[in-house]
Amino acid sequence: MNPKDYGTVGVIGLGSMGLGMAQSLKRAGFDVIGCDVSAAARARFAPDGDHATGSAADLASCEAIVSVVINADQVEAILFGSDGLAKSMRRGAIVIACSTVAPAFAKSTAEALAARGLLYLDAPISGGQAKAAAGALTVMASGTGAAFAKAGPLMDAMAETVYRLGDEPGQGSSVKMINQLLAGVHIAAASEAMALGIKVGIDPQTLYDVICKSAGCSWMFENRVPRILAGAYQPPQSSVNIFTKDLGIVLDTARRQTFPTPLAAAAYQLFTMAAAAGMGADDDSSVVRVYERLSDIVLPKGQ
Amino acid sequence: MNPKDYGTVGVIGLGSMGLGMAQSLKRAGFDVIGCDVSAAARARFAPDGDHATGSAADLASCEAIVSVVINADQVEAILFGSDGLAKSMRRGAIVIACSTVAPAFAKSTAEALAARGLLYLDAPISGGQAKAAAGALTVMASGTGAAFAKAGPLMDAMAETVYRLGDEPGQGSSVKMINQLLAGVHIAAASEAMALGIKVGIDPQTLYDVICKSAGCSWMFENRVPRILAGAYQPPQSSVNIFTKDLGIVLDTARRQTFPTPLAAAAYQLFTMAAAAGMGADDDSSVVRVYERLSDIVLPKGQ
Repeated sequence: MNPKDYGTVGVIGLGSMGLGMAQSLKRAGFDVIGCDVSAAARARFAPDGDHATGSAADLASCEAIVSVVINADQVEAILFGSDGLAKSMRRGAIVIACSTVAPAFAKSTAEALAARGLLYLDAPISGGQAKAAAGALTVMASGTGAAFAKAGPLMDAMAETVYRLGDEPGQGSSVKMINQLLAGVHIAAASEAMALGIKVGIDPQTLYDVICKSAGCSWMFENRVPRILAGAYQPPQSSVNIFTKDLGIVLDTARRQTFPTPLAAAAYQLFTMAAAAGMGADDDSSVVRVYERLSDIVLPKGQ
Repeated sequence: MNPKDYGTVGVIGLGSMGLGMAQSLKRAGFDVIGCDVSAAARARFAPDGDHATGSAADLASCEAIVSVVINADQVEAILFGSDGLAKSMRRGAIVIACSTVAPAFAKSTAEALAARGLLYLDAPISGGQAKAAAGALTVMASGTGAAFAKAGPLMDAMAETVYRLGDEPGQGSSVKMINQLLAGVHIAAASEAMALGIKVGIDPQTLYDVICKSAGCSWMFENRVPRILAGAYQPPQSSVNIFTKDLGIVLDTARRQTFPTPLAAAAYQLFTMAAAAGMGADDDSSVVRVYERLSDIVLPKGQ
């Protein structure tokens, strides 16, 4: 379809991911309004002030809302708050929910919207800022056939890979949650490994080089340890606070299911230690600095 | 050099790794004697009974000993037991120690051998059975220049990659220890992730496929989860007992250094739960069956 024939698309949350997604949609020819409470974030998307708003309520006439806000509380406020879009959007419009949220939240939100004739795609994203900007994200999606059909043209503009994980909202969020469990444990493990390696006297760069070619490697080890080697914790590529949130979702979900997750729990505590030490807004590789603060190891220093 | 000009090489421990290493040396033209207490293991290396022995004491005249036994206790017995080789080997001969041991053990063993004029290469290996058989292992090595020189021709026959990690015995073992910390945590995390994913209703094959292409992937996730999907825990490619041992080395070393390793400790407990449940000799991916035993999840069943 021609993007010009699609109604206006509202992108809520113009942070590191949402900005690139909004730009990808615009580049593909969609009529996009960006929404963020931060004027600076709005200016990055729409320097002339046009096609941007600070209030989600202004997006009521959109055919699609792409929600890229930080957490479930913000999703709840946008949809069901005093000026919530759930009441004002037109029947048949869609909410594409890209935040990482608990599967149960995705399910209940979809049900509440369906009761008002609105479509919902459970569509958490992965790939980082660069892929968001390039329209090359990975989306772990689930929802009804109607939701997938409505979201399809937008997905083509934003994503390289869309996993279609089932008909029920929550299934996409479940897979994303498991990915985050692994990602969080692997970042914490990379930190523990580098810290102990330094403690026993191994050169950290050598350790990194060997592990990257060995069975101990992980995507996160390979990706995050260079930040430790550079001593570069600011600006964050992804922050400690993201993982206290996402591992919190893992623990909440597991608790609801009465299911043990000792590793996720230990990793959660490590991210919480980093946040408690004032590193919540720093790069998530800052977990390694928890070990430094607790011992006599000396980490590589930044420039 | 011509392998025929090298003295006899004794390979002690003809298990899944040692057998392939002994065969690789033999293929390269070295005069090799295989040693194992198990007659079946000896017969696999030397069906005619020649060039094999059940007693390490028979290897006293070897120019090089490649030790591929299970743990530090066995190394200790071979070298310093009542018939120990440390007393009987000729000055200038070398012990190439490939078992995963504590760095402090590698250091003290090297010192005790040096006092008797023997060389020692701290040379833990990685790569698995197939690479051992192909002469394509990875070796994380440290030791004196003389030790590297003496071990070189044998390494050429057994290994694809030899990391030269320093002049001091223990440095190779330190890097291997960190690799095992990560490998153990990643196997346990893969188990926890698959178990929770199944609990929340995700199809395990789909979960595997998505995670393998996502930021939550690790070498171990990709390698071990297929065994979970196949329900194939016997025969083990690598057993639970290997990781209670190797994570035990991590915890012992960290304790000596008064250094916290909460993730390694949690992973150690999970492998110990698997061993306590009778799965010690099963594949290390059996950690996932700890979660099954504790809950109502149903794992894929083997054929």
